Amino acid sequence: MTQDATIPADDRTYELGRKTVAAVLLAVDTHDRAQLQSLMEPMHPADIADLLEQINAYERARLVQLYGQKFDGEILSELDDTLREEIVSVLTPAVLADAVRDLETDDVVDLVEDLDKAQADKVLNALDRSDRVAVEQSLTYPEYSAGRLMQREVVMAPEHWCVGDAIDFLRTSEKLPEQFYHVVMVDPRLRPVGNVTLGKLMSSRREVPLKDLKEDVFHIFPAVIDEGEVAYAFNQYHLISAPVVDANERLVGVITIDDAMAVLDDEHEEDILRLAGVGEDSSLSDSVLGTTRQRFPWLAVNLLTSVVASLVIAQFEEALAQIVALAILMPIVASMGGNAGTQSLTVAVRALATKDLTAANLWRVIRREAVVGLLNGVLFAIVMGVIGLFWFGSPALGYVIGLAMVINLVVAGLAGTIIPVTLEKMRIDPALASGAFVTTVTDVVGFLAFLGLAVWVLL
Amino acid sequence: MTQDATIPADDRTYELGRKTVAAVLLAVDTHDRAQLQSLMEPMHPADIADLLEQINAYERARLVQLYGQKFDGEILSELDDTLREEIVSVLTPAVLADAVRDLETDDVVDLVEDLDKAQADKVLNALDRSDRVAVEQSLTYPEYSAGRLMQREVVMAPEHWCVGDAIDFLRTSEKLPEQFYHVVMVDPRLRPVGNVTLGKLMSSRREVPLKDLKEDVFHIFPAVIDEGEVAYAFNQYHLISAPVVDANERLVGVITIDDAMAVLDDEHEEDILRLAGVGEDSSLSDSVLGTTRQRFPWLAVNLLTSVVASLVIAQFEEALAQIVALAILMPIVASMGGNAGTQSLTVAVRALATKDLTAANLWRVIRREAVVGLLNGVLFAIVMGVIGLFWFGSPALGYVIGLAMVINLVVAGLAGTIIPVTLEKMRIDPALASGAFVTTVTDVVGFLAFLGLAVWVLL
Repeated sequence: MTQDATIPADDRTYELGRKTVAAVLLAVDTHDRAQLQSLMEPMHPADIADLLEQINAYERARLVQLYGQKFDGEILSELDDTLREEIVSVLTPAVLADAVRDLETDDVVDLVEDLDKAQADKVLNALDRSDRVAVEQSLTYPEYSAGRLMQREVVMAPEHWCVGDAIDFLRTSEKLPEQFYHVVMVDPRLRPVGNVTLGKLMSSRREVPLKDLKEDVFHIFPAVIDEGEVAYAFNQYHLISAPVVDANERLVGVITIDDAMAVLDDEHEEDILRLAGVGEDSSLSDSVLGTTRQRFPWLAVNLLTSVVASLVIAQFEEALAQIVALAILMPIVASMGGNAGTQSLTVAVRALATKDLTAANLWRVIRREAVVGLLNGVLFAIVMGVIGLFWFGSPALGYVIGLAMVINLVVAGLAGTIIPVTLEKMRIDPALASGAFVTTVTDVVGFLAFLGLAVWVLL
Repeated sequence: MTQDATIPADDRTYELGRKTVAAVLLAVDTHDRAQLQSLMEPMHPADIADLLEQINAYERARLVQLYGQKFDGEILSELDDTLREEIVSVLTPAVLADAVRDLETDDVVDLVEDLDKAQADKVLNALDRSDRVAVEQSLTYPEYSAGRLMQREVVMAPEHWCVGDAIDFLRTSEKLPEQFYHVVMVDPRLRPVGNVTLGKLMSSRREVPLKDLKEDVFHIFPAVIDEGEVAYAFNQYHLISAPVVDANERLVGVITIDDAMAVLDDEHEEDILRLAGVGEDSSLSDSVLGTTRQRFPWLAVNLLTSVVASLVIAQFEEALAQIVALAILMPIVASMGGNAGTQSLTVAVRALATKDLTAANLWRVIRREAVVGLLNGVLFAIVMGVIGLFWFGSPALGYVIGLAMVINLVVAGLAGTIIPVTLEKMRIDPALASGAFVTTVTDVVGFLAFLGLAVWVLL
């Protein structure tokens, strides 16, 4: 596949056009294989994957069948997990074998780990023996580990070599990896001791020892470390590629920045979706039933917390019957608390993810959130007090709602920080669970403070 | 600065330890410069920046002053925007000059664009004349453009060269960029025509024309394109480096994947914070007043929308006075709608950011969200109907809350998709504004449906 250079014009450039999709679907409808192939020939596999995600299951099956003999394996790598099984089951064994044989081993691992046993075997059997062994070895590492992420093709050199040795070795190598950026120096026990960039290698004299060209920043990852930590280190230390070692500290593979970037993107996606109470594997191509099932649990948790809040309200039945203004105003206090709590918790969840919130600054951050809650609480207390006064003509109601606002915003700031930090300490993902806890707290405190003060002051 | 290889042990590995911070602060307190330097010597500039972000302004100033003569410019690059001015103002002119002279031009641009005029001039005057010109030229491109992101140091070769020519050129070059991954082939008018990886260059015979080694995937960015589009393309097409051209399509610089990764990280951060109604430049090192100011606007918007919801409730004063159960149950309907709406809108905002939601699948997605809302609505209607029946002993109340739930969840699905898509079409960031609109809709519809049906059925 060859791509022409494209000069993007505006921010819609990389969006898959409605016209392209329509033209592809027309070709499928009219069984025009030549037209379909000529439309898809210039497209990047990632864009073809996006196209497959945008059409429905019936159209997908017909497209893949019509497309025929050749199916780029990279399209499978780029597809949403949820669609891979579907596409693999539609491909004929011969086409599937062709598709996967061209992939790097890390891409095959990524593909196989999401398939069911029968389909995974189909893919594995399509590989050459040596590739299959490599993939099966990678699969022995835990899911989401550096061992699964790495590619096994490594360019290494003994630490005593000079530039000339390394260049001669590279020029005579039979099979170098498709993409590599460093030569990894190893000691006699195959333990990595340093990286040399290809740029330095090319611009140095042949007799310079590799040792003298070592990169300053050099990180080694154990194969069992979580891929999220790998992505963090790549981003924090601007790594381009880094060696992976087994339990004996021997070099077993290398991770490159493009894979780390994909992990970083996935982790962000996971955080943002979890914060909203959406299953982190959700995608636009999920079915109605699948989506309903994903969204249900969080809504059920929310129902539970709202019922708890309603039980609090029910304690004040008498007051509500006497002063209807309380029923009218009470959602405002709860809603402001919920919003302020969400602000604090989002900042805390992000700061935990980027390791900016640590034991060293925790108390300062908690104090800051409480004081910010107090200041905003006072500001909105004044606004709401005035509204309460003029709307219902009752200064006492104004004081009550104002004071309840201050209390709830301070509590929101505290809960929004303390709850995610506590969950993180308990090794529960704070992005997943904080929202429910924080809103329960702000709802309960909001209703309790407002209605409780009202009973005390107004009745 | 030289770093030893570290083998990370668990997911706390990359977290800055409380002990390190305490030891550094102790050295500052006791004016022990030697100890401070020996503690900070092995640290990566990114970690030093994190450390500076974790301590307070007073400690920062004292640390920087004690640290003395040498201050790695990369620390400035890694710092939060909000702290850069503070640190630059503490550094003596001589130390600042030393610090910035070692930076690549793209890092200096990144630094200068966030400083005020006087400080920016201080930095620019510290540079060599040629570097200053390069930085000033980059600054003529719009903020957040490819032109600001690129580095101007490019390794290029005429398109008619062979591998041998390129290698000889590299080996005799005086000054190559610190990091580079491709040789960019250019035509006689300096327009980029292809990339050749250093790996291919090293492993090919000297007489092979560069043309034959061109990468399949090749993207050119105009200098004025938004950096978000650049990051998207790097992630989508697994680019490692890509040329940047001016309005005449002439090569003016190159963007590398580590810079694209940083942009992707920033954009995610922005989205997640905007969705929560937190200023996108917020950081843990912001002051209390700064944080209060950042959070205030979104809370003010939320106050406005809650007051609107309260005005809706106020229309049903009579019903509420007669049936207190309505006041107790009504927050449940609004809260479920708000949550379902947030789920839909988060999925839509993410899908818009990743260009997965387009004109081609918009109607299918909207239909799906409405049907998902309907299904979950029916499920929760049954649950709430039963709760309503047993809690208050009224089947009619059960029907009313159940039906209101169905209506509000369907509306939540529709509003959660249509509102962000409409904002995007109006070129307003959907992450920023969708939340307020969607909750207003679900609050108003929730109260209106529940109380309206109650008046109709129960009174």
